[in-house]
Amino acid sequence: METSYRNLNLPVRTLLGPGPSNVHPRVYRAMTTPVLGHMDPKFLEVMDEMMELLRFVFQTRNTITLAIPGTGSAGMEAALVNLIEPGDGVLVGVNGYFGERLSAMASRHGAEVRRVEAPWGQIVEPDQIERALAARRAKLVAVVHAETSTGVLQPIKPIADACHRHGALLLVDAVTSLGGSPVPADEWGADVCFSCTQKGLSAPPGLAPITVSDRAVAVTSSRRSPVQSWYLDLSLITKYWGSDRVYHHTAPITMLYALREALCLVHEEGLEPRWRRHQALSNALIAGLNALGLPILAPESHRAPTLTVARIPEGVKDIAVRTTLLSEHNLEIGGGLGALKGQVWRIGLMGESCTQANVLLVLSALESALGRQGWRREKGAGVMAALEALA
Amino acid sequence: METSYRNLNLPVRTLLGPGPSNVHPRVYRAMTTPVLGHMDPKFLEVMDEMMELLRFVFQTRNTITLAIPGTGSAGMEAALVNLIEPGDGVLVGVNGYFGERLSAMASRHGAEVRRVEAPWGQIVEPDQIERALAARRAKLVAVVHAETSTGVLQPIKPIADACHRHGALLLVDAVTSLGGSPVPADEWGADVCFSCTQKGLSAPPGLAPITVSDRAVAVTSSRRSPVQSWYLDLSLITKYWGSDRVYHHTAPITMLYALREALCLVHEEGLEPRWRRHQALSNALIAGLNALGLPILAPESHRAPTLTVARIPEGVKDIAVRTTLLSEHNLEIGGGLGALKGQVWRIGLMGESCTQANVLLVLSALESALGRQGWRREKGAGVMAALEALA
Repeated sequence: METSYRNLNLPVRTLLGPGPSNVHPRVYRAMTTPVLGHMDPKFLEVMDEMMELLRFVFQTRNTITLAIPGTGSAGMEAALVNLIEPGDGVLVGVNGYFGERLSAMASRHGAEVRRVEAPWGQIVEPDQIERALAARRAKLVAVVHAETSTGVLQPIKPIADACHRHGALLLVDAVTSLGGSPVPADEWGADVCFSCTQKGLSAPPGLAPITVSDRAVAVTSSRRSPVQSWYLDLSLITKYWGSDRVYHHTAPITMLYALREALCLVHEEGLEPRWRRHQALSNALIAGLNALGLPILAPESHRAPTLTVARIPEGVKDIAVRTTLLSEHNLEIGGGLGALKGQVWRIGLMGESCTQANVLLVLSALESALGRQGWRREKGAGVMAALEALA
Repeated sequence: METSYRNLNLPVRTLLGPGPSNVHPRVYRAMTTPVLGHMDPKFLEVMDEMMELLRFVFQTRNTITLAIPGTGSAGMEAALVNLIEPGDGVLVGVNGYFGERLSAMASRHGAEVRRVEAPWGQIVEPDQIERALAARRAKLVAVVHAETSTGVLQPIKPIADACHRHGALLLVDAVTSLGGSPVPADEWGADVCFSCTQKGLSAPPGLAPITVSDRAVAVTSSRRSPVQSWYLDLSLITKYWGSDRVYHHTAPITMLYALREALCLVHEEGLEPRWRRHQALSNALIAGLNALGLPILAPESHRAPTLTVARIPEGVKDIAVRTTLLSEHNLEIGGGLGALKGQVWRIGLMGESCTQANVLLVLSALESALGRQGWRREKGAGVMAALEALA
């Protein structure tokens, strides 16, 4: 035992990347609530309350509305693996990194995947989905609501309508929208909708909220083959969250305390005021970025209010700027993913991170860092434009 | 918004069930460390340090030693799904609930499972494994080190030797042993060994520490088919934990802070003193239970020091006693699982829960609750026997 380990002594960052977002002190405090057993009647009450709160944010009456014991990608895998059996036809909308992930996962679960593609930065046109379904039936259509790689907000309702016309189930990835943008699962008629905790809900990462329609539950109950994953088998998870209370896994108690408190904060603010806050501050950020000469990737009509993706100006070094933000301002923004690596910055304004102060901070810090690379606009142009947009 | 949600106001329990165990205040405090981004260079340093600490508790030099982003059962699924391809022969030792789980999961992943069975409460005899391997080759042998349903501690070394003689990989479920009992992964020659955070390590539940031998890594790299689970694909998880630092999932940052602090506590205590503490207090508990007239299920030679399983005396009501312990003493012990439901109690002394005070508490509380059901021994018999054993 020669090594000795010191107390964690980490910087306090302003998190304006694509998630995690900053966490409210009440959420940290909730996590110090002493751990209870996962079958303790008092803990089971907490789970019931959480299902109510999750139904509230998903705007749904679905019975099966709970938190998968893994991160957002576990939510994605749970959504797919429960609905797919080997050989099933699955249509995936691919216009970014997470559409690619949906497609890759669906293939691993044995689906016959057909991709409906659009350029990164554009929406998948609902007509494309309609035509593909008309050409050949699919059991499931999977799309991303807010594409975390491009900042594009996908219209869901017309895709849902197409699914209903053609008897397909609809899966919606709401990882980057839930808690910052409307995710009306029932109004859409989505069959499975999942998210994460560390973005619009501003809890630490580690759980995946999910809601499943009765129609999708019926499909899973009439499977010919067992779900490939035991850990993510919704019929087993549901027996624990539901009235049966059959032990499946040991629930991540502390993370559930954290998510509960974060959901209480959403409930206290109210969904509509919360969406308005995200929309107004996202508008201000965009005004500021435009004034700094950074074009936004997504078209004006289809931008996620939670995440703004801007092109890096010619000649400006991606890593140098982000390193300056991190080391001099303790400020995190995201770089590009996949095909957009080195070409864009991803700036999140989600949950607790979505404040006017943070909009001004990121615009000032960017102006300063860009200036060092010879990219200059009128002094204070970004901040002034943002304040005007908010006035 | 008619409903209003109150602050969490939960009882403070003494957790002497089969896990979760109680959590040290330093671990709770570590969780209030502000969240960093999962690609933040400062967070990546924390991950490197955690790999060192995990190698320390697993007593291994395996490069691939990390924490799977899910609970212990996710660790089990990760261990199996990465090694198994459809049609592979897998030998599973089944002498309790978690051997059954290994067998069920391996089947879902397409393995041809052969079960080597022993009665619940007994070990699987290494000779049984040897004979089964001699009769027909297997790619993988999977066994449970400390069976959480029976309290049996399985000898691993002779099984590992049999695996090596017959060219099979060895998977060890160390969920209920790691941190309370030696888990010498390298000395055994185990190929995959996984655990959880909420038992011997006394962190909250939510992660699954795992270590993988180079031999097993080589097997996974020469797979003919992709790993069925994208979320638990070790080659992808390893690219994030390793030097490549390729984004896979958003790490459960806060849970990792918690696990790090819990591992620091183990490191400060030292492995051998920690094992001695668990052994001595488990001996005391057993002496007390015997004095109360509760026979221990596992034979004396094969008892897990972390979890003692005792038979409920004839005529005593399981639920009534456990409800009394919970409501009057804020004390949780576990009931029987599966075939042993209603027949045994499972009393854990793990990590922070493993103290002399808790041994005396559970014996006193049991004496009192049993007395109400007409099951009486000499006054204070349990406590006195425990103190004598400790003297």
